[in-house]
Amino acid sequence: MSDNPRSHHMNIEDFRRNGREAIDWIADYHRKVESLPVLSRVRPGEIRAALPPDPPAEGESFEAMLRDVEEIILPGLTHWQSPNFFAFFPSNTSGPSILGELLSAGLAVQGMMWTTSPACTELETHVLDWLVGMLGLPEKFLSTGKGGGVIQDTASSASLCALLAARERATSGASNEIGCDGRLTAYTSAQAHSSIEKAVKIAGIGRANLRAIEVDSNFAMRPDALAEAIARDRREGKVPCFVCATVGTTSSNAIDPVRAIGEICRDAGVWLHVDAAMSGTAALCPEFRWIQDGLEFADSYCFNPHKWMFTNFDCDCFYVVDRAPLIEALSILPEYLRNQASASGAVIDYRDWHVPLGRRFRALKLWFVIRHFGVEGLRAEVRRHIDLGQTFARWVSEDPRFELPAPAPLNLVCFRLRSGDGQNQALLDRLNASGDLYLTHTRLDGRLTLRISIGQAHTEFRHVEKAWARIREEADNL
Amino acid sequence: MSDNPRSHHMNIEDFRRNGREAIDWIADYHRKVESLPVLSRVRPGEIRAALPPDPPAEGESFEAMLRDVEEIILPGLTHWQSPNFFAFFPSNTSGPSILGELLSAGLAVQGMMWTTSPACTELETHVLDWLVGMLGLPEKFLSTGKGGGVIQDTASSASLCALLAARERATSGASNEIGCDGRLTAYTSAQAHSSIEKAVKIAGIGRANLRAIEVDSNFAMRPDALAEAIARDRREGKVPCFVCATVGTTSSNAIDPVRAIGEICRDAGVWLHVDAAMSGTAALCPEFRWIQDGLEFADSYCFNPHKWMFTNFDCDCFYVVDRAPLIEALSILPEYLRNQASASGAVIDYRDWHVPLGRRFRALKLWFVIRHFGVEGLRAEVRRHIDLGQTFARWVSEDPRFELPAPAPLNLVCFRLRSGDGQNQALLDRLNASGDLYLTHTRLDGRLTLRISIGQAHTEFRHVEKAWARIREEADNL
Repeated sequence: MSDNPRSHHMNIEDFRRNGREAIDWIADYHRKVESLPVLSRVRPGEIRAALPPDPPAEGESFEAMLRDVEEIILPGLTHWQSPNFFAFFPSNTSGPSILGELLSAGLAVQGMMWTTSPACTELETHVLDWLVGMLGLPEKFLSTGKGGGVIQDTASSASLCALLAARERATSGASNEIGCDGRLTAYTSAQAHSSIEKAVKIAGIGRANLRAIEVDSNFAMRPDALAEAIARDRREGKVPCFVCATVGTTSSNAIDPVRAIGEICRDAGVWLHVDAAMSGTAALCPEFRWIQDGLEFADSYCFNPHKWMFTNFDCDCFYVVDRAPLIEALSILPEYLRNQASASGAVIDYRDWHVPLGRRFRALKLWFVIRHFGVEGLRAEVRRHIDLGQTFARWVSEDPRFELPAPAPLNLVCFRLRSGDGQNQALLDRLNASGDLYLTHTRLDGRLTLRISIGQAHTEFRHVEKAWARIREEADNL
Repeated sequence: MSDNPRSHHMNIEDFRRNGREAIDWIADYHRKVESLPVLSRVRPGEIRAALPPDPPAEGESFEAMLRDVEEIILPGLTHWQSPNFFAFFPSNTSGPSILGELLSAGLAVQGMMWTTSPACTELETHVLDWLVGMLGLPEKFLSTGKGGGVIQDTASSASLCALLAARERATSGASNEIGCDGRLTAYTSAQAHSSIEKAVKIAGIGRANLRAIEVDSNFAMRPDALAEAIARDRREGKVPCFVCATVGTTSSNAIDPVRAIGEICRDAGVWLHVDAAMSGTAALCPEFRWIQDGLEFADSYCFNPHKWMFTNFDCDCFYVVDRAPLIEALSILPEYLRNQASASGAVIDYRDWHVPLGRRFRALKLWFVIRHFGVEGLRAEVRRHIDLGQTFARWVSEDPRFELPAPAPLNLVCFRLRSGDGQNQALLDRLNASGDLYLTHTRLDGRLTLRISIGQAHTEFRHVEKAWARIREEADNL
């Protein structure tokens, strides 16, 4: 913004006026989002066709942009902030988070190193230490010891960084120095997130060296199968380096037995990463901390406040017990980044904790969220969602046409008609086409299964009740 | 936000009021930022010490948070938005960009696939196609052919993705399938950004397989040395797969000869990535497009609107000529992400174009910036900065105590006292400690060299004039 009348920048007083309009537009959007079709109905290419083929030569007014957002963009959105959004995992925002992101964009500092904005680094370290206590994580994840936490963009990136640190440790640095040699192997459950396969490809380990470990009848990793796979690979000259256990799989919210897996990893000297992307938030409540039993055996851990903790994307919290191999794997130090504070060793330079060099001030929104809700406020919202999930599961169990093919320990319920894939696909398509709600699917035991993921910030009893009514109604019509 | 009085979420009317306060706070910050010491003066640990050891049990008011931002956070910031910020490369924001980011946080859609918000994907594709024309890039980077553009967080990530696509192509997919085997080699200039070394480590290629190619007297890559290095590696059984040329190095803004490098890469069948992170923006002006002469030989290209094009971090634009190897390298398709639109092949799913799965609506702020300034407005700002850079270089050349150790083709000027490293270090330390401006350094020909990077959005003639006056004044006092 500028006061200089010759500048092409937005005038400061115009910014105040335009900013108020933008704030009001968001408030109005949140008030009406419930009434919009959840899944966008546009056809491929429709949005592009509405946009001018060339950029404007001269500047346009903010009013024109906001009008286009309303008229062109809005119909092309799938409304993740609708209380009728039950697809995938939630990806929430909230008032304090939006305002934290706004201030971050306004300050626009780069937190790549401590010296380039000390508060950006120190607030992040502080809030991530807060979360260790809030979630009941092992104290060895605190930054005050050898470990610590950092904000990553996503759990995909966190898992990649965990794998890189594991690779560094398993090869004593050789994988970073002379490259991978095709001997490293990694392990995760056959139900785990695709991000592990992606990480294994990126890291040059190769997906043929990722073992998809069998699951039990609850779709959780079988520790005995893991132990066998590690032993088999060792016998064949492989170098097992990384296990990812999942606390709440995307597919069915299966909770891998972290303790049993952790004991195996400890005995085998293999890095254990625990991915609790959505479900980790449940650990805010002491009564749900059983999901992470055994976490003291983990070398790294992540969960995403941008899923279920009302902090807008991107905000994944990633912790390591020992930051040394992570930093070894990712550190680079050209002359132009050298500075006294870094050289002193007294500060954290987060650029060495993830893939990008630059980083924005994401701790601000997370700090605002925690302060706005307070720990008790966050717990209340989480308990409310889990309660809704349990209620929905009970309704399904009471309708003889439906079955629950997997346990529903928290807020995600897998369900399906007993009448087969065709009927379930038709049910899903009709529901999503109606715009009344948005569900996605998975496959369990080879069969098409619908998922209802209840964690959108503003989903209340009435939305879940209506969703179940619509599901039964469409099932009646099949 | 919520209207429900039992909810812990911010009330919608409170959001409007708090949002106006946040907007005004940003406007006030931008008005006063020029008067603040540019480099933060806090000592390590000082910010943390001012924060409460435990998170609040109950929620707090937005007023309390905003007060803490002012009183605790602000002194801990290094002000990248100060017109007296001349360090590193700029990392700009602007009114339209802040408001675009605000709307993105308010809508909080996930653009991981076309179907999860078609407008998020299509606006991004459209604006990146606009930029092909705006920058005079080769048309083969347009999405309408086999290539296309995508927003990445940083040039570090873009370079990594380019390397992964190159690795995929060079090994016909084997590196992704069975892993790297220590034979792949990569090439960049000895003056190139550390991100290439980081990418080579991450990708399992190993930094011993990265060749730092000699530079000429202008600190630009020597094509003959590159050709020799590739030939030598071939003879020794290595598999050359990736060259990164830099258009505007971080160290001294050296412009690698893209055409000569490109011809070598074409003949050798090696992937050429061109990193124009800051300087790419200069190509908005036809008279500066010589910097990218030969870009038609490149397989991929990136530049960062979040540096010099007034778009707040993060926003790197990454282009490929052929999207197939990129997608092959990064694609994963679990059941829960399958959908009709993706299966039809008629849409782009950007999740396969980068490391993370999730992605926020970053195209919105880029669209707002281009529309607010218009192409001519952006050109005028870029010309203004380059003109200031040239003026500064002339001043330096006219003072016999100083020398210009490298060409200053655009807006970054390297300079130093002729009297040696000790004097230059003292000069740098005194200037930065004064708070009046912030400069960083590099080493050229083994000697400490100061850099003045003129690209902060609001830097005007008077700021550069004052910077030069302060530099001479401190030089007088040494």
